[in-house]
Amino acid sequence: MQEAPIAFHGVAYGRPKPHHNAELTEVGPGTPCGEFMRRYWQPLTLSARATTTPSQIRILGEDLILFRDRSGRPGLLYPRCAHRGSSLFYGRVEAEGIRCCYHGWLFSVEGECLDQPCEPCGGLHKDRVRQPWYPLQERYGLIWVYMGPPARMPVLPRWDVLEDVPEGQKLLVSHSSLYAGGDDDVEIVPCNWLQEWENVMDPFHIPILHTSFSGVQFVPEMGVMPEVNWEYADAGMRYTAYRKLDDGREMDRVTQALFPHVRIVPNVQLAEGPSSGIGWVVPVDDTSLRLCFVMKVPQDVDRLPRSPNLRPWSQMTPEERQAFPGDWEAQVSQGPITFHSEENLAGSDRGVSMLRRTLGQQIRAVQAGQDPAGTIFDPDHALIRIEAGNFFRKPSQG
Amino acid sequence: MQEAPIAFHGVAYGRPKPHHNAELTEVGPGTPCGEFMRRYWQPLTLSARATTTPSQIRILGEDLILFRDRSGRPGLLYPRCAHRGSSLFYGRVEAEGIRCCYHGWLFSVEGECLDQPCEPCGGLHKDRVRQPWYPLQERYGLIWVYMGPPARMPVLPRWDVLEDVPEGQKLLVSHSSLYAGGDDDVEIVPCNWLQEWENVMDPFHIPILHTSFSGVQFVPEMGVMPEVNWEYADAGMRYTAYRKLDDGREMDRVTQALFPHVRIVPNVQLAEGPSSGIGWVVPVDDTSLRLCFVMKVPQDVDRLPRSPNLRPWSQMTPEERQAFPGDWEAQVSQGPITFHSEENLAGSDRGVSMLRRTLGQQIRAVQAGQDPAGTIFDPDHALIRIEAGNFFRKPSQG
Amino acid sequence: MQEAPIAFHGVAYGRPKPHHNAELTEVGPGTPCGEFMRRYWQPLTLSARATTTPSQIRILGEDLILFRDRSGRPGLLYPRCAHRGSSLFYGRVEAEGIRCCYHGWLFSVEGECLDQPCEPCGGLHKDRVRQPWYPLQERYGLIWVYMGPPARMPVLPRWDVLEDVPEGQKLLVSHSSLYAGGDDDVEIVPCNWLQEWENVMDPFHIPILHTSFSGVQFVPEMGVMPEVNWEYADAGMRYTAYRKLDDGREMDRVTQALFPHVRIVPNVQLAEGPSSGIGWVVPVDDTSLRLCFVMKVPQDVDRLPRSPNLRPWSQMTPEERQAFPGDWEAQVSQGPITFHSEENLAGSDRGVSMLRRTLGQQIRAVQAGQDPAGTIFDPDHALIRIEAGNFFRKPSQG
Repeated sequence: MQEAPIAFHGVAYGRPKPHHNAELTEVGPGTPCGEFMRRYWQPLTLSARATTTPSQIRILGEDLILFRDRSGRPGLLYPRCAHRGSSLFYGRVEAEGIRCCYHGWLFSVEGECLDQPCEPCGGLHKDRVRQPWYPLQERYGLIWVYMGPPARMPVLPRWDVLEDVPEGQKLLVSHSSLYAGGDDDVEIVPCNWLQEWENVMDPFHIPILHTSFSGVQFVPEMGVMPEVNWEYADAGMRYTAYRKLDDGREMDRVTQALFPHVRIVPNVQLAEGPSSGIGWVVPVDDTSLRLCFVMKVPQDVDRLPRSPNLRPWSQMTPEERQAFPGDWEAQVSQGPITFHSEENLAGSDRGVSMLRRTLGQQIRAVQAGQDPAGTIFDPDHALIRIEAGNFFRKPSQG
Repeated sequence: MQEAPIAFHGVAYGRPKPHHNAELTEVGPGTPCGEFMRRYWQPLTLSARATTTPSQIRILGEDLILFRDRSGRPGLLYPRCAHRGSSLFYGRVEAEGIRCCYHGWLFSVEGECLDQPCEPCGGLHKDRVRQPWYPLQERYGLIWVYMGPPARMPVLPRWDVLEDVPEGQKLLVSHSSLYAGGDDDVEIVPCNWLQEWENVMDPFHIPILHTSFSGVQFVPEMGVMPEVNWEYADAGMRYTAYRKLDDGREMDRVTQALFPHVRIVPNVQLAEGPSSGIGWVVPVDDTSLRLCFVMKVPQDVDRLPRSPNLRPWSQMTPEERQAFPGDWEAQVSQGPITFHSEENLAGSDRGVSMLRRTLGQQIRAVQAGQDPAGTIFDPDHALIRIEAGNFFRKPSQG
Repeated sequence: MQEAPIAFHGVAYGRPKPHHNAELTEVGPGTPCGEFMRRYWQPLTLSARATTTPSQIRILGEDLILFRDRSGRPGLLYPRCAHRGSSLFYGRVEAEGIRCCYHGWLFSVEGECLDQPCEPCGGLHKDRVRQPWYPLQERYGLIWVYMGPPARMPVLPRWDVLEDVPEGQKLLVSHSSLYAGGDDDVEIVPCNWLQEWENVMDPFHIPILHTSFSGVQFVPEMGVMPEVNWEYADAGMRYTAYRKLDDGREMDRVTQALFPHVRIVPNVQLAEGPSSGIGWVVPVDDTSLRLCFVMKVPQDVDRLPRSPNLRPWSQMTPEERQAFPGDWEAQVSQGPITFHSEENLAGSDRGVSMLRRTLGQQIRAVQAGQDPAGTIFDPDHALIRIEAGNFFRKPSQG
């Protein structure tokens, strides 16, 4: 029973109320970051998920209905029928579009009203009605959506690493939360998108969280504290982490974060070479996200590569998650939207600071009427070359 | 992979924020529609449900305690004891009323405080206390409540179709949600009352939703697109739907909507004759409703007549409900309170438009100090004659 | 079917909106009552619950992380790591404190940052960072926390009845909700703390709720309606309930309520003598509380004494709870925070009135810059003598 005098500095009493950074985190219609996000094509979902059975999907804080008409065209419509508001989730998909269950109005994938069967002649004024819709494209096994102002729609870019798939390989697409610390059975990560995205520019959590803390979740070499150099790049930023390994080899590991929420992370087993895929941290709403990956893999692979040391998150008990935390625990426990007001950023957080700064600049550029960095309007220059990868230095470089 | 130019009209970007029509839909104390509703006797629940075990019931956004004292009188009291606020749900029912569990105050069905056992002489000032209560009446197997200003209390009316029950028949009372697309096992429909009520003036959804869309939910003849004539009537409105059937017969189907939320729908199997019952769309609160029906049926019938083609809603999977939607899916999917601001009403919605207009007029009449249409103050003229029914035209009329 | 005229006074229509008394009930940081509460040492939890596995605990509306470092010191820290906000719930406990999982910052039980392993030299500026913390003490098998302004921290007092435990006895500590009408398997009582605390100054509910209403929950003698004398005392109040029992004996039962939320209730079986323990009604947040008891008991007793007539609450069905209500039903059914605005206090509620009045005075005293009653600053005068107990009058006193 201690009665000793107590040091009285820094107690929790009287601390200021924390607040989140709304400008950088909120993504709903009309918000600064939401308008920024809407200037890019967003990977919505796997192409295979658009079928003749309508499904509900949320992105950037908007609930929408996805379907594929019987002519094969994917459609993404506002859920409430333009007539009386019944959900098109209960609609019937036909060759030309989707028909509302209540009074049978038929809408094309572009929202045109094609039939009003309870009106004379199928609706003499049906051209005055338009179901709110979003333009879609399909590429890399994904459906892409543009949710921004029509006049500012960029080209859907290509990424070099996803082109020219060699024989014996294929593109794997996945919404697994594995690389956010979850696993293949979980898609929604319940925290703000920026908590996940900025983690990509934070190389220093790897030797702590993924190595010394919870055991070697990747490979032992990742536990070596790296020398890191962060740099702005035209459409985002990158860092190079230099490690001298125990066997004398020297490695440069280049990781990229591109606008609006692209993450290009080299193989965490330190396999040599450029990244084999691209990831996107898609905001579902202000407090949840869905990852999206496209990756070149051998034909017989049908899941994202996982470290053999990582336990499947869904199979861990709460006690095990507490004892062996990973990215999920570190980032989701920051809260639905973390409070920048309470942080104490240090030198090793320079990537996080830089990412927030450059993100804020782009958000304000959009507010000022400009197109944000990384939007491409010339179809002839819409191929993005990636730089990320694990590269061993040659002895002569030493 | 489609790269074609995209038609750019009517996208969901930049659409205005939707809003509901508060005046017509909200029913809590002090709201315009709530005050209108409170000028009528409301069917509260089945008489059989008022017992010596108190029960909780919500109506017009108010939570109340229903019981029947041991002298047989039903009582409906504000739940929080006027003494210290413990719920009378835990009260003990006695011959003269209900006694609070905490300190034993006893209240009559009219809220009079009859005993305060912890006070000298059982409470010398107990007459200063009154538990808030509402007047009740019992008729047609229902308990009726008047929740409005005492000075404006109308007579509880009678309906001709519910009087003079002939031998071999009886009055069936039910809270089934069957006629809102649910079934006998579900009572609460989770959407605003007006979405259900206005559906009664909407004959055109029948050939779509109930016939071509989900298969024949009623009878094939209901799938014939009708000629419809809507009319205002003193205390609401009605429509006549004329159909020429395949066998050459011609039918007039008359459906009524009376204030505040009465629905009189003829037999959906097209059995000839006047409606055999009355329904009420009772607002539970702003975002849920409970139907109430009284119907003349043969002595051995104890459930609402149901179409043999309708699957029991409670037994359908979500996938089946999506594939075979009914009134529940069409109306509940409009949302907790639908957004009139987003609708595009057409000619076939004339009944809905008219119903909203006449409803709004009555709401504003109450605000202006008048009694709304359909309230009756002369007990000698309190019999309401209904007009609804299925009537075949005679050949000579053709 | 009753058609008789209806008495029209006191109907529920038009009643004013109720409101709670925020000054007396809300306990969050910066609220009047919250600031008052924070001037006292609060019993946080059982000492045994502070272990090397961090746990989450809520008190006075604040979520905190409790742990015991591997040197044996208990710590109570703000959950969000001062670095980047990950929860210390996922921290690793070491000899000197707790280490965040994300980047490994190490904090002592007093919030000092002892290591920043991703920074050069373990953090050259780590002394600029402090994890918000609260001072703790351990006594009577409990961990006590002071959550107020450092300059106004009083001495943690002792209670005479908990000192000098004789051989064959021990101090039993418990968070059981048994004495709030729950049982040993339930700790959180879902209502405002004051509803429970003021019940202690309300002797008259005993003959009703605990005797005539639900059967004899304690002993038959408690059903005798007492003569009660309430008195203010320096740091709270007390009452003496005089009963003349059937066997001619006369008993004085003294019950105390001390600031901020101490309850000292004599044995409810009417065993003679001073109270054998102390209870605290600790506010978890505005709408829930946790009881805390310390009691002298024989060595082999490991649960709070319970009346054999009281059924275990967790084992009762909702129907049984309605039929046999106890303190839980009476107080929790008052609502999350009861509405004083709707009460009608009577003579038998004088203890409740007095308690609220004296509580309000102390709350306003703190607002005026004073120390509230019952806070002790002189360690030599920090022993509190209790007065509560069941005392039989000697015949000569009669």
